[in-house]
Amino acid sequence: MNEQLLLANVRSSLIRQEETIIFALIERAQFLTDTVIYEPGHFGDALEGESLVGFILRECERSHAKVRRYTSPDEHPFFDNLPAPILPPIHYSENPLHENMVNINPLIRSAYEKGIMPHICEDGDDKQYGSAAVCDAYTLQSLSKRIHYGKFVAESKYRARTSAFREAIVSADRAALHDLITDRDVEESVLDRVAAKARAYTREIADATLSPCVAPESIVHVYENWIIPLNKQVQVEYLLER
Amino acid sequence: MNEQLLLANVRSSLIRQEETIIFALIERAQFLTDTVIYEPGHFGDALEGESLVGFILRECERSHAKVRRYTSPDEHPFFDNLPAPILPPIHYSENPLHENMVNINPLIRSAYEKGIMPHICEDGDDKQYGSAAVCDAYTLQSLSKRIHYGKFVAESKYRARTSAFREAIVSADRAALHDLITDRDVEESVLDRVAAKARAYTREIADATLSPCVAPESIVHVYENWIIPLNKQVQVEYLLER
Repeated sequence: MNEQLLLANVRSSLIRQEETIIFALIERAQFLTDTVIYEPGHFGDALEGESLVGFILRECERSHAKVRRYTSPDEHPFFDNLPAPILPPIHYSENPLHENMVNINPLIRSAYEKGIMPHICEDGDDKQYGSAAVCDAYTLQSLSKRIHYGKFVAESKYRARTSAFREAIVSADRAALHDLITDRDVEESVLDRVAAKARAYTREIADATLSPCVAPESIVHVYENWIIPLNKQVQVEYLLER
Repeated sequence: MNEQLLLANVRSSLIRQEETIIFALIERAQFLTDTVIYEPGHFGDALEGESLVGFILRECERSHAKVRRYTSPDEHPFFDNLPAPILPPIHYSENPLHENMVNINPLIRSAYEKGIMPHICEDGDDKQYGSAAVCDAYTLQSLSKRIHYGKFVAESKYRARTSAFREAIVSADRAALHDLITDRDVEESVLDRVAAKARAYTREIADATLSPCVAPESIVHVYENWIIPLNKQVQVEYLLER
């Protein structure tokens, strides 16, 4: 039984994922932007046309696919053509989701590389390419999980107000769905909690080391401008397939 | 120029690595011990005789080796026979270390799987095998980097008191070297700082979610009983090859 997939545990799982994401952002922000790691081809032909970050992320997904990471309903790969699992399949009998093909990882990767990463990292090149790219791959995976958790959130909302949702779904009314899933109070409380955590988790670092450390308000900004909107986009896309 | 390798920056780098390790331990501790992931062969022949953790760690090292992670003087692989880098070599002109072959990763892996992980995780099986194993691989890499940083620490101490060290080195006097490198005041201040950070970083989680959260004193215990002693062992081994 995978209790994290139960709708009753969605809120607790989302709260716990805040730590993962904040830690990941703090880790990445110790390095400068190092923009060459996002340029396809910059490191030559050996990376098969990928950027360094893309290469590391794809290699990571290839190995995790072998141990069936992407058979779990709360995991979504960034790459196609991954190897088949070498472990026997798990049956996720507790999976509450309706069958769907929603995967907005291309949007997430673009938002991360062009928006989030430059927002949290100081501009420059410190030659920490491998370390920064490993952080990027981990952060992208954490963001993808959090954002696609919108499916569980949407399913929960759908079950609570099925008839209102059905009406918007049958007419493919994206604006109505967007309104139905939006809860400003919950969004405010997420941002307040993230702000409190970000302050707590960055306080010690800024005092004690020479490493750059991300500002707490930058982490809140990442939630407000990318994570929450992309999460809502997943909710709408999921509902449209429901 | 990789400034992290400069002896002047060793202290700052060690302090910054505390965040990485504490975050990694907190992340792992949200899952139960899941001991089957450490059993070679438990998941069948497809993992080539490795445990799930060993398999994920080795796959990770294979991809990172391709992007030359283990050519950096502060990185040490757990596995042999890794693929050659596909990127051109970097020349670490700033590397202050004497040539050496010290790599105590087998000890670190054993200490982690038998000591550290069971100390920070609640006993049990929550079926989160993949997630837990990914955390393990990352934690092992962070611990390895921190512990092998003892080489830089030892080099720094050697340069400050060369004649005292040379005497112990020529007679291969491990006990004398151990005494020479030991600074109880520094160890105390590391433990105090780790305790303060661990309290700050675990406070929010314990309040807000159902996930198990590691106790701050367990993280201090990990430093006191494994990280610091293994770091000192690296220092002694390095000096004996100096």
